[in-house]
Amino acid sequence: MTINIASTIIPPFSTEAARAATDRQGRLTKPAGSLGRLEEISIKLAGMTDTVSPDLSPALIAVFAADHGVTAQQISPYPSEVTAQMVYNYAHGGAVINALARNAGADLVVVDVGVAADLPGDLPIVHRKVRPGTGDWTVESAMSLEEAEQALMVGADLVRQRPKLGLLAVGEMGIGNTTTASVLSAAFTHFSVDLLVGRGAGVDDLGLQRKRDAVASGLARLKGDPSPITILAEVGGLEIAAMTGAIIAAAERRIPIVLDGFISTCAAVAAVAICRPVRDYLIASHRSEETGHRILLETLKLQPLLQLGMRLGEGSGAALAIPLILAARDVLRDVATFEQAGVSDRDR
Amino acid sequence: MTINIASTIIPPFSTEAARAATDRQGRLTKPAGSLGRLEEISIKLAGMTDTVSPDLSPALIAVFAADHGVTAQQISPYPSEVTAQMVYNYAHGGAVINALARNAGADLVVVDVGVAADLPGDLPIVHRKVRPGTGDWTVESAMSLEEAEQALMVGADLVRQRPKLGLLAVGEMGIGNTTTASVLSAAFTHFSVDLLVGRGAGVDDLGLQRKRDAVASGLARLKGDPSPITILAEVGGLEIAAMTGAIIAAAERRIPIVLDGFISTCAAVAAVAICRPVRDYLIASHRSEETGHRILLETLKLQPLLQLGMRLGEGSGAALAIPLILAARDVLRDVATFEQAGVSDRDR
Repeated sequence: MTINIASTIIPPFSTEAARAATDRQGRLTKPAGSLGRLEEISIKLAGMTDTVSPDLSPALIAVFAADHGVTAQQISPYPSEVTAQMVYNYAHGGAVINALARNAGADLVVVDVGVAADLPGDLPIVHRKVRPGTGDWTVESAMSLEEAEQALMVGADLVRQRPKLGLLAVGEMGIGNTTTASVLSAAFTHFSVDLLVGRGAGVDDLGLQRKRDAVASGLARLKGDPSPITILAEVGGLEIAAMTGAIIAAAERRIPIVLDGFISTCAAVAAVAICRPVRDYLIASHRSEETGHRILLETLKLQPLLQLGMRLGEGSGAALAIPLILAARDVLRDVATFEQAGVSDRDR
Repeated sequence: MTINIASTIIPPFSTEAARAATDRQGRLTKPAGSLGRLEEISIKLAGMTDTVSPDLSPALIAVFAADHGVTAQQISPYPSEVTAQMVYNYAHGGAVINALARNAGADLVVVDVGVAADLPGDLPIVHRKVRPGTGDWTVESAMSLEEAEQALMVGADLVRQRPKLGLLAVGEMGIGNTTTASVLSAAFTHFSVDLLVGRGAGVDDLGLQRKRDAVASGLARLKGDPSPITILAEVGGLEIAAMTGAIIAAAERRIPIVLDGFISTCAAVAAVAICRPVRDYLIASHRSEETGHRILLETLKLQPLLQLGMRLGEGSGAALAIPLILAARDVLRDVATFEQAGVSDRDR
């Protein structure tokens, strides 16, 4: 590990570039403000990238996969095996995120950071397994502190090792991970368990109660005022820690980060807990149906672009938002001003 | 005019294809229903196109431009000249819709159906001027019945003359046209003027009162129970009538139609008034900030995909929704089923 992820330096959001973008939006051939949130996103992109002409290319969707020992508590309607099965599905191009990444013109990379199965080395994914699934954090630590740091570095390395990267979207696969994201969210935000535990991939009423009980047990592991990395180690997930590392490493490079649903937004909350200025580099793609997602978005003061009643994860909402984000960039960069186009502005 | 637009035959929405798409969505490798409105759109697309594998290619954004005599009532903060100036801007690739059409991978065509200026014949647009702007419908008919039919045919011809067309998005440019859309909306839906008149491109309080007064004068022209085409002739706009014709002609060919904001949705209301089954072929891209848009969407029972606080028109919201609509198609067509991918479904 060359740079400690916890002591990284995030460049400041460029208020000058944001101001220049705001000014330019007011001179483009359209009524001022008439593109609403698209203008707002373009101004954020300018501040993040420190230019009114952000490149954003290539866009990468990184899907981190890992298993969760807490599935022993029967908190998911799907068996753990589905995590590995879905990794094969991604590798073979058959999953929703494959279709949506193609649609968005984005590259897709899948990372095994902790799948509880031996995946063949020739499977076209990034092989960085830290351990085969977490421990069941209702009865033991999810992982050691060292493993948590390794998982953070898996995500950070993925970003740092790409010479050219314009936009990063993060997604995940891990049966049981809405339960893990719920306990992490409770630990980071101090909102109540009931507000943060939802039905995930579709658990029934009994399962929902088991999720709440599991989260309460997990929270009991956290004594005193634990550091963010201790929280990740005690009750975290390997894919969540990896997303956290990827988010921090992207902010280091002024790369805008597109969050997906509840789990990836939980990783962003962890990243902001580790390193507060990371918040300035986050874009919320959508608000999912998962109960806790709204609370995390409000905690981060992020307003989602889409609300389509989705709750899939794996980067699907982030992928859908990429064309909107590129559209915001295109308007800022490519549209003519009133002066350039010889169009009369209002009241002249 | 080879086929009378008012007596056209719209093929029925295919409930079989929609049912097959619903069934397929339940077998794809994701929790059933987890893509929310994206699944719903994919099912609509199947029913519209009568296949679970809709082509939708090429996508065309058609922007119809015309002027409005009612601008004499000072209901817009922009001078009428801006309509022609923006047509030049479109032709030179400098407007928002140019950037957004490129982003969406859609073709863009601009049609002069009634701009109150002589546009040079070599300007790369479709030249089908019916008349140079409408009459001021607060004091005279906007156009004759024959001119209204000609304007409808301009839109219909544009669609009918394209041998290959997979998706049609409609947009418009016409200074003053939110006022015209307001009076048309009041005539077609019978909602009150106050609910249907908004600030358009950004008129002030006095201008807003002038818009309301103009709309009341326009409504007074309509005696008895006028036909939809009489309404278009008395208080319509040339670009609105052309969009109406394009929408009907697309539905004739099972081509899904992506509406933009208030004005294009008003054209859809007119199209449905002329020919009710057209409604089954409409997709609402976004809900704009313009007051009346929500009422028209509710009248048509359409739920918008996006709510980004936009109020530009010119097809901008429709263009932003195209990648979402293509994504819905891609998921339905390309994603593997649980069986194909060897992924365990829930509770097995």
